[in-house]
Amino acid sequence: MKTSSVKELLASEKLLQEVNVKGWVRAFRSNRFIQLNDGSTINSIQCVVDFENTDEALLKRINTGAAVSINGTLVESQGKGQSVEVQVTNVEILGDADPDEVAKTILQPKRHSLELLRQQAHLRVRTNTFSAVMRVRSALSFAVHQYFQQNGFYYVNTPIITGSDAEGAGEMFRVTNFETNKAPLNEEGEVDYSQDFFGKQTNLTVSGQLEAETYAMGLGKVYTFGPTFRAENSNTTRHLAEFWMIEPEVAFNDLDANMDLSEDFIKYVLQYVLDNCKDDLEFLENRLLQEEKTKPQAERSEMSLIEKLRFVVDNNFKRVSYTEAIDILRNCKPNKKKKFQYLIDEWGADLQSEHERYLVEKHFKCPVILFDYPAKIKAFYMRLNEDGKTVRAMDVLFPGIGEMVGGSQREERLDVLKEKMAALDIPEEELWWYLDIRKFGTAVHSGFGLGFERLVLFTTGMSNIRDVIPYPRTPQNAEF
Amino acid sequence: MKTSSVKELLASEKLLQEVNVKGWVRAFRSNRFIQLNDGSTINSIQCVVDFENTDEALLKRINTGAAVSINGTLVESQGKGQSVEVQVTNVEILGDADPDEVAKTILQPKRHSLELLRQQAHLRVRTNTFSAVMRVRSALSFAVHQYFQQNGFYYVNTPIITGSDAEGAGEMFRVTNFETNKAPLNEEGEVDYSQDFFGKQTNLTVSGQLEAETYAMGLGKVYTFGPTFRAENSNTTRHLAEFWMIEPEVAFNDLDANMDLSEDFIKYVLQYVLDNCKDDLEFLENRLLQEEKTKPQAERSEMSLIEKLRFVVDNNFKRVSYTEAIDILRNCKPNKKKKFQYLIDEWGADLQSEHERYLVEKHFKCPVILFDYPAKIKAFYMRLNEDGKTVRAMDVLFPGIGEMVGGSQREERLDVLKEKMAALDIPEEELWWYLDIRKFGTAVHSGFGLGFERLVLFTTGMSNIRDVIPYPRTPQNAEF
Repeated sequence: MKTSSVKELLASEKLLQEVNVKGWVRAFRSNRFIQLNDGSTINSIQCVVDFENTDEALLKRINTGAAVSINGTLVESQGKGQSVEVQVTNVEILGDADPDEVAKTILQPKRHSLELLRQQAHLRVRTNTFSAVMRVRSALSFAVHQYFQQNGFYYVNTPIITGSDAEGAGEMFRVTNFETNKAPLNEEGEVDYSQDFFGKQTNLTVSGQLEAETYAMGLGKVYTFGPTFRAENSNTTRHLAEFWMIEPEVAFNDLDANMDLSEDFIKYVLQYVLDNCKDDLEFLENRLLQEEKTKPQAERSEMSLIEKLRFVVDNNFKRVSYTEAIDILRNCKPNKKKKFQYLIDEWGADLQSEHERYLVEKHFKCPVILFDYPAKIKAFYMRLNEDGKTVRAMDVLFPGIGEMVGGSQREERLDVLKEKMAALDIPEEELWWYLDIRKFGTAVHSGFGLGFERLVLFTTGMSNIRDVIPYPRTPQNAEF
Repeated sequence: MKTSSVKELLASEKLLQEVNVKGWVRAFRSNRFIQLNDGSTINSIQCVVDFENTDEALLKRINTGAAVSINGTLVESQGKGQSVEVQVTNVEILGDADPDEVAKTILQPKRHSLELLRQQAHLRVRTNTFSAVMRVRSALSFAVHQYFQQNGFYYVNTPIITGSDAEGAGEMFRVTNFETNKAPLNEEGEVDYSQDFFGKQTNLTVSGQLEAETYAMGLGKVYTFGPTFRAENSNTTRHLAEFWMIEPEVAFNDLDANMDLSEDFIKYVLQYVLDNCKDDLEFLENRLLQEEKTKPQAERSEMSLIEKLRFVVDNNFKRVSYTEAIDILRNCKPNKKKKFQYLIDEWGADLQSEHERYLVEKHFKCPVILFDYPAKIKAFYMRLNEDGKTVRAMDVLFPGIGEMVGGSQREERLDVLKEKMAALDIPEEELWWYLDIRKFGTAVHSGFGLGFERLVLFTTGMSNIRDVIPYPRTPQNAEF
């Protein structure tokens, strides 16, 4: 007999059919009611055992965590909270779960700390919270691809191992084939990288942008969606050493079109999840509600999770220039009362998380796109404005998250780009190919990067970025 | 005015509309006919300039490679091979391309060697061949996601940086934050990895399978699609040091279901490309035809590119046990006449590419799934058969490609798995979490890995794997 998923059975209207379903026992009550989950949905299906006619030894093996195969009849449910259940005719134990061993793990059905769940990351996907987060993550990923493919973008896999260290987005991990402390030296006594695997020093990419630009200037509209790396010793709830990034890049788009794209894109993927992950979002909304009850009233969110997602989808992002933002910040209460850790004094200051959150959460109370930042605090490849001191940069700021997107119109003028690189001591030989793109039919183009895990954080209402990726990589942690 | 893509204009039936289109000049003939391409399609649109009323200085700047913005009227085309063209009212040069500089590059419109194109990989996407390959690659990627998402699979991002070196699929690159040759030592004089970024030795993953298994045993059906790495010094047309791999893993699937999945999956993605990439495939089919004309008759393919794709979609893959395959090979002509480099003598021999190709290309003349390999030549995690000497492994072999897929039913029995690991000196502490999955509700499960670039090779008819990924990573090469 064909095996049905729990999701299929719960949606089925064909009552009285004989079914087979396989999954893991979440609970077994009164020697009678198995809550069976197979990961296809947050919901378990109730399987009712005829315990009087079932072997006692078998009943004893129906423990939380065990894998079972159940044959039975799909019937209307007598209980609350479910429309159908399975009247069991046969239970087969596929894999036991010793209750004493289970009691030592997070499979034990009770509330565990998120920290403990992290230590058992190989089992946490069998909990409701993590299976919901990971299904939403999967749906978001697909929405990303669907949005771009439907809008004429081509997916580009930019290299993970890079010979360039001029990407300028952060500290990089080294990649090597040398044995540790045994790299060969050349005649000058320096490390002879020509003998390493790639014949040169290589690193893990921090961004695929520069390579994506070369592809946009051929295919028109492209996007990347792949892992990127930062060797930064940041032990925060918002940073990972390995994370997934989405980077669209579009020929002929200026900064306004780039802002439009980022807003349209984010709204699309959130709407997709609202449409396709109803059960998981409702579960996560309740989880968040419970979590917030432990906080003081003032720190609780005014909106529920789903309300927050709807709010983003239904409202325009506020577009504010850096200069306007500085004016707002300079004159705001927390600045005047010296409540900010970094006081805003002068135009040119780099905005910290506290400032971004003030603008988004207190002042505008909606997602904000800041643009036209001082050139000094932004990367070399951003297009210089006519004023000579600002660049066509943009950051999309989200409540609770801070920077969700960072992007810019790119400097397409060869001479200006060369000057900028010279001023920053970036050797032209390093980026000859990047400069070439400005030599042969250069044009206005723009793009942005969106840290995928921050999007998952926002969408699921989780508060630690380690809880929205299967096996997080952070300082001192590469377990599993 | 809204800018239209070339693809939109060529498909438009709204004649006489005023349009704006931006792109790169592929050719400019008779001071009159611009062939304009923007990467949205393999086809260029013809833009007809009223040269008598156009400034001479401007006409001189309409060179191959230049970026231009064109306003005009969409009209029925007088020429052959296109239905519409643009009657130009205004040309704006966005970015020049100096003909003398262009002549030094592959942008020069003539036939270039693929090797030269590789050296200018940042420009090759502006050629017809590479833009077609990359659009097909993008479509294949999307088809992969669409297939799995429509079939109830969840996308899982397994870690790229791994602390485990027991994945057993090949040599690994090291990832470190230590300065080369300056790693600190502990009191015993050994490298003190506890001081490295992750507090231990780390590598780039060779496979996400083991982690994907842990997720399948919670979410049921999962797949990965991400970069994987091999530090092997293989300078062949079929190997990359960095490549993208697709790895589905399914709880409760046995090897038969796994074979069904691999066949169904491959047919779906090829059908998707046949349905969605007609123009690009026709171009690539012609390219291949031209290439094959330079070969002796005997080496030419009997089928055209599109015929080959249709053949795979329309026919069953032949399923053959390793033991049957050995019988066929032992008794085949090339073995008896000692034409094979490695003669097949005894059961247990590892099959080489020449044997796989004989089976697929000469004997069965269709994709072949070989299964039930000798345990000795396969990985530790594959399920041992009752005979005690074979494992539930499978390889899908393709004409011209060899191994497209490698997979297996996984060993779900804790005791058997532990024995296997002990025999191979794999420490249990390394894979405690992998073993845990067998302790708590273990069950039959299966999966496979498909090298994405090999799929792109087969689909596009290209012959070197370096030509189906934007920036290939191979021994001594990490340029761009």
